[in-house]
Order: sequence, then C-alpha cells, then structure tokens
Amino acid sequence: MSDRSVFFVSDGTGITAETMGNSILAQFAIKPRHIRRPFIDTVDKAFQVVREINTAGEREGKKPIVFTTLANDDVLDILKTCQGKVFDVIKTFVEPLEEEFNMKSNHRVGRFSDPSVDGEYNNRIDAIHFSLEHDDGQSSRNLESADVVLVGVSRSGKTPTSLYLAMQHGIKAANVPLIPEDFDRGFLPSMLKPYKKKCFGLTIDPERLSQIRNERRPNSRYASLENCRAEVSSAEAMMRREGIAWLSSTHKSIEEIATTILRDLRPDRLIY
Amino acid sequence: MSDRSVFFVSDGTGITAETMGNSILAQFAIKPRHIRRPFIDTVDKAFQVVREINTAGEREGKKPIVFTTLANDDVLDILKTCQGKVFDVIKTFVEPLEEEFNMKSNHRVGRFSDPSVDGEYNNRIDAIHFSLEHDDGQSSRNLESADVVLVGVSRSGKTPTSLYLAMQHGIKAANVPLIPEDFDRGFLPSMLKPYKKKCFGLTIDPERLSQIRNERRPNSRYASLENCRAEVSSAEAMMRREGIAWLSSTHKSIEEIATTILRDLRPDRLIY
Repeated sequence: MSDRSVFFVSDGTGITAETMGNSILAQFAIKPRHIRRPFIDTVDKAFQVVREINTAGEREGKKPIVFTTLANDDVLDILKTCQGKVFDVIKTFVEPLEEEFNMKSNHRVGRFSDPSVDGEYNNRIDAIHFSLEHDDGQSSRNLESADVVLVGVSRSGKTPTSLYLAMQHGIKAANVPLIPEDFDRGFLPSMLKPYKKKCFGLTIDPERLSQIRNERRPNSRYASLENCRAEVSSAEAMMRREGIAWLSSTHKSIEEIATTILRDLRPDRLIY
Repeated sequence: MSDRSVFFVSDGTGITAETMGNSILAQFAIKPRHIRRPFIDTVDKAFQVVREINTAGEREGKKPIVFTTLANDDVLDILKTCQGKVFDVIKTFVEPLEEEFNMKSNHRVGRFSDPSVDGEYNNRIDAIHFSLEHDDGQSSRNLESADVVLVGVSRSGKTPTSLYLAMQHGIKAANVPLIPEDFDRGFLPSMLKPYKKKCFGLTIDPERLSQIRNERRPNSRYASLENCRAEVSSAEAMMRREGIAWLSSTHKSIEEIATTILRDLRPDRLIY
C-alpha cells in the first residue's frame, strides 16, 4: 500500500478532477493511493470528506493531495479547511478567464447536461447502438451512414476502438474483420466495396496477436504464431493494394488509436 | 459560427486538456469554436499551431483561448509565443507539487502507457469484451465473474452504461432485460437468481421511454405510452420486491449513472 493519498473531490462525477490529477501525477515517480469522492454537493458531505482527508494524513504522516472541481463556494470553503494540499482545478483558471471574457462565471456545478433534452448526448447514444449493431461485420444495413469502418484481422483492436469512437466522440464506427477466406479470394469483403474511402485499417505485431489469441483459445491454430504471421501479412498486403490507411495497435491505447483516426479520416471532427 | 476560438493543444491525445478546458468553459455563458490539436510533439508542429492560433485571433478580433498539456519545454516555449491566452494545465500544478513531494517531475509526455505491457489496460479490454458478450442477456456463461449486472426494461440505458463501466473503469458489467414475459410470470429472469446481490436496476420515465422507442419502432405497441407505463411500473414493482437498488436514467448521463453504480455497489472501486 502506498504511503500517500490523493483525493479527487467533485460535486459531479469527478471525471475532470481525476483526468487532470492523473495527468499531473504521471509527471512524478510515485504511486499514491487514489480516492474518488463524487457527488459532494452539500456542506455536510464536505465535512465528511475533510475528516477522511485528515485521517489519511495523520495515518500516513504526509499531506494528502486533493484535486477538486467544486463550484459551490460554501462547499469549497469547507473542503479548504482540510489538512491536505488542495488544488482547485476550476478556480485557478476561471478568474483569469473572467477577465479575458469580461464576464462573470456562473459557478455552475460541474454536471452533464440533461440527456433528455441534449441533442449531442443523444447522438452519442445512437452512435453506440450503431457501433454495436455493426460490430464484427454483423450487418451491412445502413453501412452508408457509418462515419468510419474499421477493418483488420480478428483481435487487432477493432471492437474497443469502434465503441470508444462512438461513446466519446459520437462517431458511428462500424467494424468488419478480414478473415482467411478474404485472403484466399484476394478481395476485400464485398460489403466494404462501396465504402472504401471510409475504411481505416488496424494491424498488430503477430507476436502480440498470438499472445492475445492464446488467452482466448489456447494452443489453437487460430492463435499460433505461424497463422498470426500469415494473417497479418495478408491483411497488410490487402490494405496496401486497396489504398486503405492503417496503423498498428500494438503499442497504442484505444484513446490514441481513436484520436489518430479522427485526425486522419474525419479532421472536421477535431473542430466542433 | 462562434466568434471566439478555443484550442486544445497536446503532445498526446489531448483528452486531459479537453476535459479540463470544457469544465472551465462550462462556467461561462459562451459557445466558442473548439479546435483539437493532438500529437503536437515537435517544434515544427508547434509553429504550425501558433500560426493557426494567430490567424484565428486576427479573423475574430479576439484572443483565442489555448488549453495545453505540453510537457516538452522546447515545444511549449514555441506555443507560448502565440497571440492567444495560454493556460498551461500541467505546469500550473506541477511546480507546487514538486515542492510538496520534494522531488523533480520527469516532464513525461502525456501519453498512455504501452498497452502491450500494461495489466490495467488489458483488464479494460477484457471487460469490454465481457460486457459485449453479456449484453442484453445474451449469455449466462461466466455470469459469476460479472462485477455488476444491470437490469431494466428495453431501452432504459443498460447497454451504454455497461459499456461505459467496462471502458472507463474496467468493470465487467453484464446486462439483462426485464421483458413482458418476466412480468407475466412474476419472477426475475432465472439466470439472475444466483446473482441478485450484484444486480443494479435502471428505470426511466415512461414518457421519455416511449419517445426513445418511437424513434426505433414508430407507432408500435412496443413504443406506445400505455405499454411503456405498464412495463416501467411492473419493472419497478419487481425490483422493489426483489430488493434490487435502482435509479432513474431519465435525466442522467451514462457517466453519472456509472459513477453512482460504482459508489453504491462497488465502493472499493472508488479507491485504487
């Protein structure tokens, strides 16, 4: 167990405080204990968090670090009485912006807008359902309304990337596997023909692919290094021949793959 | 089109800069144009972004706002020559932390760790595949290894929430629909019986449910307000009888639902 605690305290989900805090902590060679405290929206709840922070600090003999995004001044004032080191993520940047915008901020509690009236939110949900229905080449129905069609061999990362693109960016991302039958025939799956311009390929090191496939189907031909090498090399040759851009998912997270796809295939989505 | 531009400039995906920037901008009654510039990891790319920022500023007659998480000092120094107002998200908090930790930061470029060697990342990918395989009551295989089983009527938000829990928190979230046959019999689906303690319910206002279902199957009995009212009221009665905690998804985003489920059902996941 680590000997230093970091608290993420928010009146909403705490996603901002946590994303931010984690990026900052990544700059240091330490592994603190992380404690999320979402929905801290009353003075009473704030007092309770202060007690938790102080207890951790006494136990560890080190000041806990506190990243917070509380917008309500009463709640924030209580939190600031704790013995931890408080980093106020919002306020630090809000005051200089008030000056630049020549406008007072509205101290809005950091929550998502109401989904029942938010068009952008509903687009994300629609995109998730679209990506699910078009996972793994399940359906060619409505493929013309896809924003992106990911292609690649089985277990190259297409499904998580499609779902991430839908969930975070509202992108309708279908995915279609390239399978040995396609390599034998030497053609892309026929459902892809009309949509080649929307295709984006994922490839992966055969060694890593074999390792991933072995976790699912140990000692199968499907997972063998020899077969993985053959599939990957055929898939790359096919994508090259068809002029489909691709990247390797081996050392990239789904977040990085998704951002690259947006930049290369839908640069308009980088402006919104 | 808005008359003020906001840039998110990062050497990685830009997710931190964007999450952070959006939370701060939500404090103001303005709708600026958002421009993401990920993977800015060389001096040349930084010069190009500076030109973009300056061009936007001249066109709009207002200083662009720039949220950045650049860790490389050479690249950051170039960016800071722009005519926009630069908010350096990382550096602002890193220096006071260096003092508190009594340790120099490592100026690490903000990227995800390498998935091929990162256990936590692989747990997330496994959780995504688990949640997909256990979407919509498709399979009772391995249900004992689920962290959470979401239950509720069709289109109450179970699928997007399951996938979000998997993707962001590495939670193995299954989901099982409650359907009219279950209400007629008066019992939970039998596959749920052994796992009642892991169940969490989603409910939804019948009016909103009818609206959502009508988008998929217009004018069907399935989507009719009368049927939605009957299903929702039967589902709530069943969850009450079975002692299953639930919440309403009507006015909550999947992020808020997921955070609530973690807090109520898996509080251990709030500490990591």
